[in-house]
Amino acid sequence: MKALVYLGPGQKVLEERPMPEISTATDAIVKVTRTTICGTDLHILKGDVPTCTPGRILGHEGVGIVEQTGDAVTQFKKGDHVLISCISSCGKCEYCRKGMYSHCTTGGWILGNTIDGTQAEYVRIPHADTSLYPIPQGADEEALVMLSDILPTGFECGVLNGKVQPGGSVAIVGAGPVGLAALLTAQFYSPAEIIMIDLDDHRLEVAKQFGATKTVSGSGEAAAQQVMALTEGRGVDAAIEAVGIPATFQVCQDIVAPGGTIANVGVHGAKVDLHLERLWSQNIAITTRLVDTVTTPMLLKTVQSGKINPKQLITHRFGLDQILEAYETFGNAAGTQALKVIIEAHA
Amino acid sequence: MKALVYLGPGQKVLEERPMPEISTATDAIVKVTRTTICGTDLHILKGDVPTCTPGRILGHEGVGIVEQTGDAVTQFKKGDHVLISCISSCGKCEYCRKGMYSHCTTGGWILGNTIDGTQAEYVRIPHADTSLYPIPQGADEEALVMLSDILPTGFECGVLNGKVQPGGSVAIVGAGPVGLAALLTAQFYSPAEIIMIDLDDHRLEVAKQFGATKTVSGSGEAAAQQVMALTEGRGVDAAIEAVGIPATFQVCQDIVAPGGTIANVGVHGAKVDLHLERLWSQNIAITTRLVDTVTTPMLLKTVQSGKINPKQLITHRFGLDQILEAYETFGNAAGTQALKVIIEAHA
Repeated sequence: MKALVYLGPGQKVLEERPMPEISTATDAIVKVTRTTICGTDLHILKGDVPTCTPGRILGHEGVGIVEQTGDAVTQFKKGDHVLISCISSCGKCEYCRKGMYSHCTTGGWILGNTIDGTQAEYVRIPHADTSLYPIPQGADEEALVMLSDILPTGFECGVLNGKVQPGGSVAIVGAGPVGLAALLTAQFYSPAEIIMIDLDDHRLEVAKQFGATKTVSGSGEAAAQQVMALTEGRGVDAAIEAVGIPATFQVCQDIVAPGGTIANVGVHGAKVDLHLERLWSQNIAITTRLVDTVTTPMLLKTVQSGKINPKQLITHRFGLDQILEAYETFGNAAGTQALKVIIEAHA
Repeated sequence: MKALVYLGPGQKVLEERPMPEISTATDAIVKVTRTTICGTDLHILKGDVPTCTPGRILGHEGVGIVEQTGDAVTQFKKGDHVLISCISSCGKCEYCRKGMYSHCTTGGWILGNTIDGTQAEYVRIPHADTSLYPIPQGADEEALVMLSDILPTGFECGVLNGKVQPGGSVAIVGAGPVGLAALLTAQFYSPAEIIMIDLDDHRLEVAKQFGATKTVSGSGEAAAQQVMALTEGRGVDAAIEAVGIPATFQVCQDIVAPGGTIANVGVHGAKVDLHLERLWSQNIAITTRLVDTVTTPMLLKTVQSGKINPKQLITHRFGLDQILEAYETFGNAAGTQALKVIIEAHA
């Protein structure tokens, strides 16, 4: 089968690989119909993710059709239409039993990281019963690809951790796909104000269409000052960090109101300064989270009911044989105005 | 009247000062019977608290008898036995109305900071109706001095923010009065394990008497390693920081379990390193809080019912005219084994 393979920092190839096989009774093999590329895949290609070693098939998002199941799989059978979670979870370990699937002792984020992923014609999904979700009949497959990772990430790590509430004020630092996913799902809770901050004016324009009440074009201290002006000096109840660098985390520290929350969503590669000499008395919370995908079934209902339309995030479509071009397009978002790109592995 | 006055970094004096007077209709004048010294008073004397200017009477803890009330005071009258909260709150502003008294727009921590405090024969208490608590008949006055600040601080900033739960594991970094207050009140929630960490073996001995299940004598990486060994490599659900320096905050980052909370109680004078490059995926929360004293009435009931005995924290007693000696004793805790010292302003 064809697969996109990581060869080490800066190197990838689309090549022929053997079909995946059932290796444990709880596995399923899924024929990938549609997958996508994540900012995390770009991190891997920069060499930022040492757990992902050369030879790995990338990708942790996608939908498909069950091709084969191991003997212990009871919830799915050949032919079922399924959504693949970016998080594999056994459902049985201490972490899984408290809903913290991200820290499953034999799962977590392994797909396209420590085991082969979804940017291929077929993929082996471990712990299939608790790592796949059935797709309702008539559902829009493209929209659901957004539910493998970015929708639950924006929602769980940003909106839920940020305690977004009716009447509250929210700022989202970074209007990339995950920031926009937080913007879409924040609106479930009717905040009074959602301020979107980015350097890219096109993305801010998209954010306005997606429901941002205000936008701030800029970064660093200047951006923080604009947010403070927009909130009459109060700051925001929830500052959602959706970039993952020290400068954007600093903006969050500068704009969080007393009693507010900084919800970190970004994947950080370096330590940051935490200004406890000022924040110790500010009654704030800072949260971190690797998405657990516990809310995927709920999010699926919001998509099915038309409450949100994650398809809006899709800007480009490619076949699997064009995946190198898809990486180019996604990696050069400032030039291509790409948000999420759909890769059709089987049309 | 006699009062302990801050004269600038390193300087204080016990001197005669005019009696305080009602300046606003919501004020009360309280005859101080007992007060105490807080670690924060030592910070002020080091020059760490720029809002406290020379000439200020120190002290934000105490109990006493209402001497006089302004026309608008309805909840207290001359002769009432009262507990003074370290936090003054109007009860009417946006922050007060959501229970965040610490950020009252005309109050907060002002006593012994921006207005004259309790280390005197008399003190003016602004917003008296919502900044004093009635003391039940027959209550032990000394025990209640601990409820002005350190008990609610340990409880609200450490135990509540740390989400201490039945069966959970807790580590408290710093076995000073506030760390010990957290230790006493953490036991309301029946955690399985409370590990106390300090460099002072006497304080660790006290901690054991107060209910610590394990103690770690040490600091930095060595202390963190011991905690990890004691928890079989898991770390703790709640790491309570009760010192306020970068090294102790670092210990908390090293010992917090995935899904756990770092509850900062310490007053920090410098920024700290936050290792988001490791913690971004650990599903943790870091909380900060200036005590709101919203739990003071509840804590009073726990003291009255004998559920906790904060009097255990008192090691020394002085008259107001010996307050300089009391400062010496409290400031040299390693030598004197002092925890909290009681100052009798009116016997």
